[in-house]
Amino acid sequence: MRAFQLVGWRQPPELREVPVPGPGPGQVLVKVAGAGACHSDLHIMQAPGPLPGFTNLPFTLGHENAGWVEQLGPGVTGFAPGDPVIVYGAWGCGGCANCREGRENYCQNLGGEGPGLRGGHDGGMAEYLLVPAARYLIPLGALDPRQAAPLSDAGLTGYHAVKRSLHLLGPGSTAVVIGAGGLGQMTIQILRALSAATTVVAVDTDVGKLETAQRLGAEEALLPGDEAIARIRDMTARQGAQLVLDTVGIDPTLRMAAQVARMLGHLTIVGLGGGALPVDFSSPPHECSVASPYWGSLTELMEVITLAQQEKIEVLVEHFPLQRANEAYQLLHDGRIQGRAVITPHG
Amino acid sequence: MRAFQLVGWRQPPELREVPVPGPGPGQVLVKVAGAGACHSDLHIMQAPGPLPGFTNLPFTLGHENAGWVEQLGPGVTGFAPGDPVIVYGAWGCGGCANCREGRENYCQNLGGEGPGLRGGHDGGMAEYLLVPAARYLIPLGALDPRQAAPLSDAGLTGYHAVKRSLHLLGPGSTAVVIGAGGLGQMTIQILRALSAATTVVAVDTDVGKLETAQRLGAEEALLPGDEAIARIRDMTARQGAQLVLDTVGIDPTLRMAAQVARMLGHLTIVGLGGGALPVDFSSPPHECSVASPYWGSLTELMEVITLAQQEKIEVLVEHFPLQRANEAYQLLHDGRIQGRAVITPHG
Amino acid sequence: MRAFQLVGWRQPPELREVPVPGPGPGQVLVKVAGAGACHSDLHIMQAPGPLPGFTNLPFTLGHENAGWVEQLGPGVTGFAPGDPVIVYGAWGCGGCANCREGRENYCQNLGGEGPGLRGGHDGGMAEYLLVPAARYLIPLGALDPRQAAPLSDAGLTGYHAVKRSLHLLGPGSTAVVIGAGGLGQMTIQILRALSAATTVVAVDTDVGKLETAQRLGAEEALLPGDEAIARIRDMTARQGAQLVLDTVGIDPTLRMAAQVARMLGHLTIVGLGGGALPVDFSSPPHECSVASPYWGSLTELMEVITLAQQEKIEVLVEHFPLQRANEAYQLLHDGRIQGRAVITPHG
Amino acid sequence: MRAFQLVGWRQPPELREVPVPGPGPGQVLVKVAGAGACHSDLHIMQAPGPLPGFTNLPFTLGHENAGWVEQLGPGVTGFAPGDPVIVYGAWGCGGCANCREGRENYCQNLGGEGPGLRGGHDGGMAEYLLVPAARYLIPLGALDPRQAAPLSDAGLTGYHAVKRSLHLLGPGSTAVVIGAGGLGQMTIQILRALSAATTVVAVDTDVGKLETAQRLGAEEALLPGDEAIARIRDMTARQGAQLVLDTVGIDPTLRMAAQVARMLGHLTIVGLGGGALPVDFSSPPHECSVASPYWGSLTELMEVITLAQQEKIEVLVEHFPLQRANEAYQLLHDGRIQGRAVITPHG
Repeated sequence: MRAFQLVGWRQPPELREVPVPGPGPGQVLVKVAGAGACHSDLHIMQAPGPLPGFTNLPFTLGHENAGWVEQLGPGVTGFAPGDPVIVYGAWGCGGCANCREGRENYCQNLGGEGPGLRGGHDGGMAEYLLVPAARYLIPLGALDPRQAAPLSDAGLTGYHAVKRSLHLLGPGSTAVVIGAGGLGQMTIQILRALSAATTVVAVDTDVGKLETAQRLGAEEALLPGDEAIARIRDMTARQGAQLVLDTVGIDPTLRMAAQVARMLGHLTIVGLGGGALPVDFSSPPHECSVASPYWGSLTELMEVITLAQQEKIEVLVEHFPLQRANEAYQLLHDGRIQGRAVITPHG
Repeated sequence: MRAFQLVGWRQPPELREVPVPGPGPGQVLVKVAGAGACHSDLHIMQAPGPLPGFTNLPFTLGHENAGWVEQLGPGVTGFAPGDPVIVYGAWGCGGCANCREGRENYCQNLGGEGPGLRGGHDGGMAEYLLVPAARYLIPLGALDPRQAAPLSDAGLTGYHAVKRSLHLLGPGSTAVVIGAGGLGQMTIQILRALSAATTVVAVDTDVGKLETAQRLGAEEALLPGDEAIARIRDMTARQGAQLVLDTVGIDPTLRMAAQVARMLGHLTIVGLGGGALPVDFSSPPHECSVASPYWGSLTELMEVITLAQQEKIEVLVEHFPLQRANEAYQLLHDGRIQGRAVITPHG
Repeated sequence: MRAFQLVGWRQPPELREVPVPGPGPGQVLVKVAGAGACHSDLHIMQAPGPLPGFTNLPFTLGHENAGWVEQLGPGVTGFAPGDPVIVYGAWGCGGCANCREGRENYCQNLGGEGPGLRGGHDGGMAEYLLVPAARYLIPLGALDPRQAAPLSDAGLTGYHAVKRSLHLLGPGSTAVVIGAGGLGQMTIQILRALSAATTVVAVDTDVGKLETAQRLGAEEALLPGDEAIARIRDMTARQGAQLVLDTVGIDPTLRMAAQVARMLGHLTIVGLGGGALPVDFSSPPHECSVASPYWGSLTELMEVITLAQQEKIEVLVEHFPLQRANEAYQLLHDGRIQGRAVITPHG
Repeated sequence: MRAFQLVGWRQPPELREVPVPGPGPGQVLVKVAGAGACHSDLHIMQAPGPLPGFTNLPFTLGHENAGWVEQLGPGVTGFAPGDPVIVYGAWGCGGCANCREGRENYCQNLGGEGPGLRGGHDGGMAEYLLVPAARYLIPLGALDPRQAAPLSDAGLTGYHAVKRSLHLLGPGSTAVVIGAGGLGQMTIQILRALSAATTVVAVDTDVGKLETAQRLGAEEALLPGDEAIARIRDMTARQGAQLVLDTVGIDPTLRMAAQVARMLGHLTIVGLGGGALPVDFSSPPHECSVASPYWGSLTELMEVITLAQQEKIEVLVEHFPLQRANEAYQLLHDGRIQGRAVITPHG
């Protein structure tokens, strides 16, 4: 089969012919419908040298995958060939306390492993994907796996970031989403779907993205700057927002985040922009919790799928065949993808 | 191998010779060190006719098991032969949201299945036990599995009942444990181990058990009756206790529970005595939550094992060889077991 | 001034002329705009003899009040004459832990005191109401106090019952409201306003009320009976609802509630129908928490007012002048009030 | 009466003769038994110029006070002259949502006001203290107010910081307290009193303080440095501690805190050392929440008092008469106070 693989550091990935893997005991072979192209893949592709944990080159890229069950390994039950499934992409040890609660994103033994990620597991940018345990598969029901693939990363990351702060979003509350790109758009919809009582504010430097944000449910859409800060403080009776989700994560956005968060609120670093926020006694405001979560849990992915099945969230995707994977990443790199680029190895 | 099996309804179990099972993909064969004899087995053994879900007679009894890994089925990793393990006994579907969070005791598809329980799975009162998935095994480290077996049921049930209410047990709080038998003793120790600030009150009709309760950490030990109720109300500034755990569960103990619980407290039915508590607008006090939990989760069992490893809880056991299993149940039925009877097929 | 007072047991209340009270230190005199007529007043008016705690006859009825600040007692700050306010009606000691957290409905020293309630405090069915502490007043902003009065009881009671269970109402969840009268209507709207992701099911014996329920946001409206139970189990993949709020509280509704609640869910007795629900090991389902809350907290009332200000909830009221108070109660008693009857002493 | 007052910026406080204030409606005059000298007073005394909000010089210092009720203003109930009380020192507006829940430390209208603090209120370093509302008084019962005074600040600050993270401190958990001075000593005792299952690790540069920490309940006492970090990682199976409380708050201690905290843990800045912790995607570990709380709530102070009454925490104090207040601050400044310096205006 064809697979889009990283074959060496400091060189572009290649489409190569590799054997179709066979599923061992407990494993499942998935026919890939869609594999999302993610900014974090660009980090891998553009790394100046070997990244820690990525020891097994070449490996196939793609950690945001959905498809159809192709073949069950010995001992697997609960699935049948042809079942549409989404693939949970944080692959842990299965035995630590976090894994046993379905939070394999926080595995205590394996940090950041998954398909196309650390650990040398081949990812989904190929005709077939070998999934090492059936527990990583969530049934999609009537959802199209070519459409649903990005729910496993952009959807799940946004969902987790919102859900852990949901208790803050009661009547009269405000949530600010900084960055209205793919992750931000998903987050705005999730806020809208989970918390009817919250006012959602989107902040972005791109007027077009602000319009999309409003269409997706943001009541307020602001260009960054002192006026935006003043507007948010005004909307919140000078208290700031209960929840600030920075889906960009560079120094200026984090600085703004600290200025619009409130006492006892949450300031969550969702985007991997490489910035850092200094926390001291008085900034952000007292007892505002600053945290940087990573992805989400297995049951949270089930909940994301439910939201999509109920049509409370939608994914904007652009499809590319496998032979155009390099081009898709180039467009992503150039900021020319609307929504999410999804590679569709079977068309 | 020998196995202590229920061969028919309305007749005593028998020690029979059966083949040693071989582990299939994902399964593990465990050499049984200890299998606890539980009151709920008596319910099964004394049932007036076929119980729902117990369709596959004969089957081996014993849902409270620990031992050593004997043989790994294909695909199993993370364990090696000889490893001492305890066996989590609530066997769910593995795919529903509760199972994926390790709460297989609340599986949405299979209610109450497990070894020696519903579903026709052979239990641990045999030389070997076939465990259908490696996720049900928790490493015991330096703990002796012959000693540890009861932690998987009496320990886990008490632990779960306490942990879900731990937020109520701050400074000046009171927890009442009704019944100071095996389950009550475990519960008292767990309260003591988890909440240093709570005053623990034990209630029992047996003076000897009250003495044991005090040795295990109860500050107050009371015979049931109006004086006990008055004493508890007095100790709590007439508010009642934040947490009342009824490990007996008959009508009179539940009635007492309602009289000593407080507004906003928890009244938890832990024992399977067959009683019922009427809840109305004014009794138990306002917003006191009444619930009847079932067993505990996989990660809670990990926490129970940690407590035992730290010697914060101890299990009082009496060992019986497999051929004396019937006798052990007779003693249990007659109320003549101190602590917990554990069958040790390998001595 | 005129006041609608209970002058003796087993006799109808009377409209009497009484002096306007003067506010002492820390107290506030409120000019009453609206005083809601509540079913619980009927319990008081129809009591067969002296009720415990109601020692000071005659006293003015009315515990659901809103109006305008008329006069501030010495030492009161933060309010000015003319300010529209709603009056929190659970008057506690102010010093116990619950009172200090604004939960005076759960005062540990005074149970159930308030205007027109236990403790001999005159209520709001008069031209003026003496409020013993400024902390019981919440500013109404642009809301009309004649309209807002019922928010302090029907609104707050429903809000508290929903809010304490909000963590259960994620994607794909179901909430069942039994009873679609005044309290039920409020509760349905609050569910709709707080939890966009939950499916709300209303149950009532009255087809007209079911239509109102659907207009207010219930997705499903069912007549009680086996078909309703089957429908709810079907909608929830045979698991039952995460939250069941019984706003009626008689034996048959509680029985139904237990049949449609799920494991780990909440079954909340909100209505004072006088029924009782027997809780045992297997019914309602395991670890479903049964509780009977009473009213709500001061900050919850603030949140209810915010929801009304944002027009996320509306109150259906019928206004009656003070001289028609008796008639309003008669109509309430006969089930002929749509929404809530509100007495308006100043028209 | 004599009062130890700040009379101007950049000059030492003075002992001055001022009139005894009379309590107005709702107010209470307290005869001061003890007023703690706090590091934050040194910040005020050594400020290079006017601090924001401190507009009313001269004012009496002292925000950590206990004493006896001397005189009740009109309308005050629930207290009698002679009652020993501790004074809650975060004085809010009383009307915002936080104040109404007893969290006046997080008042939305008045930031950081209190006796001897912002807002121009005279503090407790005088013979008498005027308390503007009876809700700030907590009865001390049998506790000696000269001894108890520091519980209102060092005790409450440590308690709040521990309590908000208590759900993290289950079996096998670890809590690290950086800094074993007055605040750290209190925090160690509170951890010990609230969470029996947690291993408490103290870190300090002073061997004597480490010995005190061990006497107060720390299982491990470490000098800072790479070895301490390695030791903590070793103790926690390389996961780091669930809770890290930095009671120093300078850059090096915060840096260490980030290195010993774990995924999903809490890193809490308790000390006002003036440092800042940079938070980015990978440090501290994922979803470790970083926050800087301020003081605690009214009901938390009630709980602290309960712990002291039960002798689960003790305060180490040194008493100074009012005329030696300047000397006490000098010793505090020089690091020569063991425990807490308390001014006792009445001996």
